[in-house]
Amino acid sequence: MTNSSKTPLNVALVGHGFMGAAHSQGWRVAPRFFDLAYEPRMEVVVGQNPDRVEVAREKFGWQRGSTDWRSVIDDPAIDVVDICTPGGSHADIAIAALDAGKHVICEKPLANTLAQAEVMTEAAERASTRGVRSLVGFSYRRLPAAVLARQFIEQGRLGEIRQIRAEYRQDWLTDENAPITWRLDRALAGSGPLSDLGAHLVDMVHFLTQSTINAVSATSTTFVRERPLLADRRGLGGTASNERGEVTVEDAVWFTAKLGTTAVASFEATRFATGRKNAFRIEVSGSRGALYFDVENLNELHFYDGTVAPAEQGFTRILVTEPGHPFVSAWWPAGHVLGWEHAFSHQIADFVSAISSGENPSPSFADGLRVQRVLAATQSSAQNNSAWVRLDSSAPA
Amino acid sequence: MTNSSKTPLNVALVGHGFMGAAHSQGWRVAPRFFDLAYEPRMEVVVGQNPDRVEVAREKFGWQRGSTDWRSVIDDPAIDVVDICTPGGSHADIAIAALDAGKHVICEKPLANTLAQAEVMTEAAERASTRGVRSLVGFSYRRLPAAVLARQFIEQGRLGEIRQIRAEYRQDWLTDENAPITWRLDRALAGSGPLSDLGAHLVDMVHFLTQSTINAVSATSTTFVRERPLLADRRGLGGTASNERGEVTVEDAVWFTAKLGTTAVASFEATRFATGRKNAFRIEVSGSRGALYFDVENLNELHFYDGTVAPAEQGFTRILVTEPGHPFVSAWWPAGHVLGWEHAFSHQIADFVSAISSGENPSPSFADGLRVQRVLAATQSSAQNNSAWVRLDSSAPA
Amino acid sequence: MTNSSKTPLNVALVGHGFMGAAHSQGWRVAPRFFDLAYEPRMEVVVGQNPDRVEVAREKFGWQRGSTDWRSVIDDPAIDVVDICTPGGSHADIAIAALDAGKHVICEKPLANTLAQAEVMTEAAERASTRGVRSLVGFSYRRLPAAVLARQFIEQGRLGEIRQIRAEYRQDWLTDENAPITWRLDRALAGSGPLSDLGAHLVDMVHFLTQSTINAVSATSTTFVRERPLLADRRGLGGTASNERGEVTVEDAVWFTAKLGTTAVASFEATRFATGRKNAFRIEVSGSRGALYFDVENLNELHFYDGTVAPAEQGFTRILVTEPGHPFVSAWWPAGHVLGWEHAFSHQIADFVSAISSGENPSPSFADGLRVQRVLAATQSSAQNNSAWVRLDSSAPA
Amino acid sequence: MTNSSKTPLNVALVGHGFMGAAHSQGWRVAPRFFDLAYEPRMEVVVGQNPDRVEVAREKFGWQRGSTDWRSVIDDPAIDVVDICTPGGSHADIAIAALDAGKHVICEKPLANTLAQAEVMTEAAERASTRGVRSLVGFSYRRLPAAVLARQFIEQGRLGEIRQIRAEYRQDWLTDENAPITWRLDRALAGSGPLSDLGAHLVDMVHFLTQSTINAVSATSTTFVRERPLLADRRGLGGTASNERGEVTVEDAVWFTAKLGTTAVASFEATRFATGRKNAFRIEVSGSRGALYFDVENLNELHFYDGTVAPAEQGFTRILVTEPGHPFVSAWWPAGHVLGWEHAFSHQIADFVSAISSGENPSPSFADGLRVQRVLAATQSSAQNNSAWVRLDSSAPA
Repeated sequence: MTNSSKTPLNVALVGHGFMGAAHSQGWRVAPRFFDLAYEPRMEVVVGQNPDRVEVAREKFGWQRGSTDWRSVIDDPAIDVVDICTPGGSHADIAIAALDAGKHVICEKPLANTLAQAEVMTEAAERASTRGVRSLVGFSYRRLPAAVLARQFIEQGRLGEIRQIRAEYRQDWLTDENAPITWRLDRALAGSGPLSDLGAHLVDMVHFLTQSTINAVSATSTTFVRERPLLADRRGLGGTASNERGEVTVEDAVWFTAKLGTTAVASFEATRFATGRKNAFRIEVSGSRGALYFDVENLNELHFYDGTVAPAEQGFTRILVTEPGHPFVSAWWPAGHVLGWEHAFSHQIADFVSAISSGENPSPSFADGLRVQRVLAATQSSAQNNSAWVRLDSSAPA
Repeated sequence: MTNSSKTPLNVALVGHGFMGAAHSQGWRVAPRFFDLAYEPRMEVVVGQNPDRVEVAREKFGWQRGSTDWRSVIDDPAIDVVDICTPGGSHADIAIAALDAGKHVICEKPLANTLAQAEVMTEAAERASTRGVRSLVGFSYRRLPAAVLARQFIEQGRLGEIRQIRAEYRQDWLTDENAPITWRLDRALAGSGPLSDLGAHLVDMVHFLTQSTINAVSATSTTFVRERPLLADRRGLGGTASNERGEVTVEDAVWFTAKLGTTAVASFEATRFATGRKNAFRIEVSGSRGALYFDVENLNELHFYDGTVAPAEQGFTRILVTEPGHPFVSAWWPAGHVLGWEHAFSHQIADFVSAISSGENPSPSFADGLRVQRVLAATQSSAQNNSAWVRLDSSAPA
Repeated sequence: MTNSSKTPLNVALVGHGFMGAAHSQGWRVAPRFFDLAYEPRMEVVVGQNPDRVEVAREKFGWQRGSTDWRSVIDDPAIDVVDICTPGGSHADIAIAALDAGKHVICEKPLANTLAQAEVMTEAAERASTRGVRSLVGFSYRRLPAAVLARQFIEQGRLGEIRQIRAEYRQDWLTDENAPITWRLDRALAGSGPLSDLGAHLVDMVHFLTQSTINAVSATSTTFVRERPLLADRRGLGGTASNERGEVTVEDAVWFTAKLGTTAVASFEATRFATGRKNAFRIEVSGSRGALYFDVENLNELHFYDGTVAPAEQGFTRILVTEPGHPFVSAWWPAGHVLGWEHAFSHQIADFVSAISSGENPSPSFADGLRVQRVLAATQSSAQNNSAWVRLDSSAPA
Repeated sequence: MTNSSKTPLNVALVGHGFMGAAHSQGWRVAPRFFDLAYEPRMEVVVGQNPDRVEVAREKFGWQRGSTDWRSVIDDPAIDVVDICTPGGSHADIAIAALDAGKHVICEKPLANTLAQAEVMTEAAERASTRGVRSLVGFSYRRLPAAVLARQFIEQGRLGEIRQIRAEYRQDWLTDENAPITWRLDRALAGSGPLSDLGAHLVDMVHFLTQSTINAVSATSTTFVRERPLLADRRGLGGTASNERGEVTVEDAVWFTAKLGTTAVASFEATRFATGRKNAFRIEVSGSRGALYFDVENLNELHFYDGTVAPAEQGFTRILVTEPGHPFVSAWWPAGHVLGWEHAFSHQIADFVSAISSGENPSPSFADGLRVQRVLAATQSSAQNNSAWVRLDSSAPA
């Protein structure tokens, strides 16, 4: 921790996998580029296995390690609990933390079940009345290109939104001998790319349009139904055994959704798009304009202004690295591109800012719940011959 | 007509709109770049209005004009009938021509109804036994990039095909004050972008995979339900009146389809993709590789070879303008790009070649019928809550 | 020839190689898409070898063949002489034709020597006073993207032009065992990529800026100095022999040039840019905007407007296929891309239009001469340690 | 500082501008992703003005501040001196630090004069014999795409290198009313984009080819010769005054260079390429292949393999984010893109690794000197009518 004159904000990280690393980078870096009201202190990282906790502690740069998340909740010195565990444990930790008055960041998806997500949302709303802040980690909302896209839409530059194309494509399961990890086990992961990748897409559509999906029709498929089992059956990695097991989640899912009375969004989430590594791509078409961006080239937003002279119309490649662009002035001079991880620093900066300003940050747990209702409806449609499932728009949150 | 030593092949063109112009260019140009067995003669162009026929005759460069397609069928000097009329008249003309022993090119879609398409297919098969050739005009099959794509797939370079993404996006209806033409009238056009654009997509998927779609689930929508009527109600153009009428076709359609036992293809056909002018784009993902191309950049095929060293994998932009590429050596030196219309010259070259070699050219009327069965099933699913419609794979053709 | 009501314009083509094929396509196609005042008739093609002339005649679709270009000049029925021979014979044919009152198209480069080019230019100016028109075939000027680029510049959309980057890159000599053709022999070709490719670049810079290069500093190199000789030493193709000969032209050339008092253009012309097939690319940067286009994607113009709100600035990819774009409305609906050869139809259309309107078409022989003065200065600088060579701006033409 | 079990490595940063921020990020982040032999401690940041030092200390996260770089040299607890001051002070600080046994990172350019650079190189070589390491900060060498490019070249995948195109284009001076900062004053900056941008290009060419430029011919220009002066004449920012002053550096420079006996590289460095923000782009063409990358899209390397089947040749867009790619496995899963600043973490990781392994890191001060000799020759040629200047290849270093 640096020798700062600011009031410290003591943070506990629960979970130290891929997302724990990304959140750690956010806590480490955000205060060095953004003028935060508090000085975050990376106090304690929590995991299950003491040896692995110690490795993570030193690698990620936390002061202490712990194997007991409840002790963190009980520790009055901790101000923030940042939850990066698998989805099944989110509810217990988040609710306990919120009830104990800790500000909470919870990695997406909010929970593995709708019921859990609903209880968490209630807890967050309760806590909010006591000045306790919470946020769900849809980090892509804080890519500069995404924020700029939302600004254009909000300003009416696209006119009435009609069509949206949202796709998140990876290819890491193309090899049919890739083993079964926990992500391919419905009991542990809930679903396949739907929750892992599709959740990001649904939240982005909600974010960009400021509207909520109200109906879906879906199809999903599993291309490779049997794969080698891991020697260590917990699905956390290691070597493959000679036995084979069943893949119980989908490999790819496609769905069509309605927003408001007019707009239609089509979605694709897949782990089988050969050659596509992290291709989160969204295109929004409206009556006056259109835009698209792709996370494989995340410093660019392509904007089509249908109101300029016809001979000059076309998609403009905006390099979202200029001083007036969202978040950009905190970083480097014009044209110096950011990476995937920067969204996590932006998330921390906005979260700390919300704590100090006394406003609820977004996306809220209620936003996370909205996403999960869509995912649940999608699964239901896919299991029912693609019949349309309507979402009860009168439901709370 | 040029002063050629070759046996002439006398051609009649029926219909002289946009497609009539494109087919005329094919007849005019193909013999100058391809070494054909016959010398096509652009003998007669047929239309309904004598004045407009004369304009088209001189503009497109035909020897004679006629307002009576039946007289052309009766003319023993005519060898080929090329049909570019609206879909509703295809069956009558094509069947008469085939029965009279004329070789027939019929623009897509094959017909406006399945019943017509079936009778036409029977006529084509009957005629084939007498050496009479027929072809349906899915011209995109003859873009060099499409042929190269099919070669890669046929050679197993993609392995097992798993996912296909097929989209055809235009934006000419984005303006809600664009008037109602015949294309927006179900009675005349059958459907909207489904038959106009979707037919190309479905045929391309069949062509690339050499497989047939056997089930579909679809959604369609009409974004703008009322538009100005034309003063001239036939929907062929002219100025808008003050009255408004109802749009009776879809503005956009999305569908998911299955091929064989594993592959899934997702489709989008729309006239509301703001900023997309003629964006026919297809991506095919398999267990060993992937490829995509886009008709807005039709000289490029992007190919991903999943079998090269991992550090070197990526989509290769193949400029399909090199001597060894399909159709290319007939044209210009390396790197000199072709345009959209060249596919029509390729179509003529292959059609004339089929006549001389005595083989049936493709796509056959049966291929056209296969496409229309898919379109009919798509419409049916879209009208039935997106329920899956299975296609009877045992149906003839 | 079609049965047209228009006054015929009888054309003779001299030379039937690659450029003869391209010009033939222009004569064949232009009248079918553009409403010309005359109906061109492809009367006679001229070459040296009677057998090859007859092959070309039938292939390209001319009425007659001839081996005597002077007889064509003497033929009062011929209205236009289109010269596609190697540069060394341009002067004789063009001057004779112009003096005989024939309109002349002369393929670039105008001539192999400055002296010839000067005499030709005088002949053209003399002929012009008698209503005889002439044009040099810098066809890239008539790509829609190039014309649109010039319009933007002319309208001041780029402000003051400061920097230009012009490159024309091919790779067909990368293989060091490619044999020596006439293009690698200074005696026949004059120079290497400088005249073959660089001439196009220089003319395009003149066209876009409406300014003339007034000084150059150049470097050239020959990467592969010895290559196999052809069995047939004329350098026109065929098989390689076992002997090797010296390459006497440059393989690549780079030069920097000045226009007016401020602007600097940098040039590269090469046959060794591995992977680049016909990469003619130009970027113009001004005080208020910039633009670029690339002939490998010739339907696109990228335009940067530095006067829009900073957060929205970026290069706009204009698909130059829309109704308001230059030449486009003659062809196909929106979004249907053109190819390399279409520029030749545009050239014919404009040339015929100039004949009927009585105006001199451009680029004129004087424009061709301006280019050759730059090429000569470039060669001189390259041979003199890259010292700057100034062009006498007071020279006629 | 984190609570680490590793031996600390105490670092002092001298200078806290843009580069100080970037180096700070490197020291902060590298140990959290790379398994370094030492734990860097960000001990002290040094500047001239105590208030601004304190701001930088807290913002960048250093333990202490100082206004006396000599005290840092004298402090036995300091292990590393990282120099981010303007070029004129590099020599004094670096030589003192090296002589005092501190490891040194020196930001580029190595110095403002050749004489200084030579003395520094001698000091570095002397220090090296005592186990003291030094490195000059050409950070682009450590972009994963650049390292992968070098690997391909080293493995012979490009064959014999023939042509290189290197350009670094920005546009921040396009506005002619942008004021004169120290970067536009020859006395302070030495030169304009030549040293600022061109130095990176020259080093990259040396790095990729493992060869040294041995001759150059150059042209430079100043488009805008007078600009507003700043109210504060030191040129460090603030508001413009009503007075105007002279720009004494070039605005753009072009040069052609030779490497070995065959290869030619062409260079462009400019601050007037309207629409180009940080467009460092390099293309290398060889007898068997080619490659290019662009720092505006720094996660991509485009590689052309001229040895695959001709019909499959093309530039492959390699997304350099996969596990086997240089530096990548330290960061995120496949497809998660890095930003511009990551190269600074790679630089620190390699530097610390060199300290522990006892090897000299690269680029060495001698490498920096090689670059500056090229820059000096370039300036000399530009001032002498673009005459070629040869570099004495027998010069030490």
